[in-house]
Amino acid sequence: MALGEFSLIDRYFKKKPPAQVIGVGDDAAVLPWANQGSLVVCKDLLIQGRHFFSDVAPDALGHKALAVNLSDLAAMGARPIGCLLGLALPSVDEPWLEKFASGFLALAHAHGSPLVGGDTVATNDGLVISVTALGYLPDAQPGLLRRGACVDDRLWVSGYLGAADLALKILQGNLVDEQGVLPQIRQSLEWPEPRVSLGQRLLGVAHAAIDISDGLVQDLGHLLDQSGVGAVLEIARLPAHPSLAKLSPDMVQQAMLGGGDVYELCFTAPASKDAEVLAIGLALDLPLTCIGYITAERQLMGRYPNGQHRILSQKGFDHFAGDRS
Amino acid sequence: MALGEFSLIDRYFKKKPPAQVIGVGDDAAVLPWANQGSLVVCKDLLIQGRHFFSDVAPDALGHKALAVNLSDLAAMGARPIGCLLGLALPSVDEPWLEKFASGFLALAHAHGSPLVGGDTVATNDGLVISVTALGYLPDAQPGLLRRGACVDDRLWVSGYLGAADLALKILQGNLVDEQGVLPQIRQSLEWPEPRVSLGQRLLGVAHAAIDISDGLVQDLGHLLDQSGVGAVLEIARLPAHPSLAKLSPDMVQQAMLGGGDVYELCFTAPASKDAEVLAIGLALDLPLTCIGYITAERQLMGRYPNGQHRILSQKGFDHFAGDRS
Repeated sequence: MALGEFSLIDRYFKKKPPAQVIGVGDDAAVLPWANQGSLVVCKDLLIQGRHFFSDVAPDALGHKALAVNLSDLAAMGARPIGCLLGLALPSVDEPWLEKFASGFLALAHAHGSPLVGGDTVATNDGLVISVTALGYLPDAQPGLLRRGACVDDRLWVSGYLGAADLALKILQGNLVDEQGVLPQIRQSLEWPEPRVSLGQRLLGVAHAAIDISDGLVQDLGHLLDQSGVGAVLEIARLPAHPSLAKLSPDMVQQAMLGGGDVYELCFTAPASKDAEVLAIGLALDLPLTCIGYITAERQLMGRYPNGQHRILSQKGFDHFAGDRS
Repeated sequence: MALGEFSLIDRYFKKKPPAQVIGVGDDAAVLPWANQGSLVVCKDLLIQGRHFFSDVAPDALGHKALAVNLSDLAAMGARPIGCLLGLALPSVDEPWLEKFASGFLALAHAHGSPLVGGDTVATNDGLVISVTALGYLPDAQPGLLRRGACVDDRLWVSGYLGAADLALKILQGNLVDEQGVLPQIRQSLEWPEPRVSLGQRLLGVAHAAIDISDGLVQDLGHLLDQSGVGAVLEIARLPAHPSLAKLSPDMVQQAMLGGGDVYELCFTAPASKDAEVLAIGLALDLPLTCIGYITAERQLMGRYPNGQHRILSQKGFDHFAGDRS
């Protein structure tokens, strides 16, 4: 959910929800379930020509349509329990549908999230994919909210950054792939892995979390705004995708800071949890990198290798004008 | 969900869900929640030009987008607990959005179903509305399934029939409104009332239920197929909308049998529950009409006032070729 959408929803739809419902404006909503944990639910729309190319491989598209929603559950620390799929189809192309379903269902199966319902309709316009993901949070857990970051928390990010954005630019024809890296990086764009296990393990460890699907600076900005804090980002520590080593460092840095379509988690945890965080990374065989720390000053400050500091975003900023979704 | 869609979903998406998940292919899915009731969830896509006119009043559209989903919850006997809204918008028309939101939120509020999340994206194509409704079923209730009908059950329908279909035909220019009934019947099309209270009261009373949004014959056909039974429909007992009295009886009969966009419940109950059913109707000030009975022979037979019988649909038939959604 990007910021422009946010304000529309705020203005017209955000009537005060009941006090027990958490997370309107978070990655997903949390509805406490009697005395038995909470239901976590989120929904994303994907539009042809806007969120995916019309010629994208259908199995990859099926995978990604679910992955972006499981990533929202992951950012709340929820365990997936099921999903629903709405498809508006311009035509019934059975081989396409079969591959789309195989990509979708394989990921659903891998995460114990069976497809339990949905709707398929014909459209005269482009393909629309609407996915709802349902998750479970155990008792007495508010989940991983955006609003829990504390001053002096460490700032962490999972996985590697920069690959999806540069793959997109190459595929769009906006960047010439002189180094021939596309085969190594397009997986990040087309087959993102939602960090579902990580999210659940961070319950009780992290103070706040968000997935950075709209880009690190923009989504971290949401987390900071909602927590009422700021952060210093150590630019030299950002974990670039290994296949980007030969590319211009400036271009890679820009992709890591601003590039979207990244289904990694950015989270904060107190320094007392360092060992636990690192152990989780080892257990999951997933790099977890400390990229900065939380400050009281309500801005996101980048600290560059040359000692320079630069404000990357400030409270209330529309963090990135180039809204991707 | 109409039959053509059904078979697509069957073919490509209906991997065997876990045994505890009920209702793939029912009005909504039922996911048992630990020892604390069940989560009921459904999802509908509405496409401009297919499910609504581009010039429909935005508050009515907001109402209806949620109503069709609450109707699916009602058909399961579930109590609404929340909803999500996905909007793909061709443009940001703020007065339109404000009215759409007011219609949507008023119905959400009336049924205790707060809007807890969603997604808003821009599209170059027509408006797409995707709603997910969440509901609760109390302990030890499988809910009202399509598959529970028993031979000799009475067949009931709520409310009145025929109005929405004829209003649609008049608005489409396919029927001349010689009697000037449109003002009395367009409410049924544009502001349908989901039978949420009725559904909950039918728990423990009805054996099977379905909403007849795709038309009585088609949706009753699903219920009969899934229950492995047939029915006799007493055509003379079908409750025509009072404002249709002056229209040709044949036309009204056709609208009552085949017309879609009807958010009434069709349900079956043993004769021993007659008094309870009638008392529920009185308590809700909602006509509940006995329109036939369940048979062992797997076909839907219409019994006409002149004594004629006619088969309206048979097991395995694609009940109506004119798939409306």
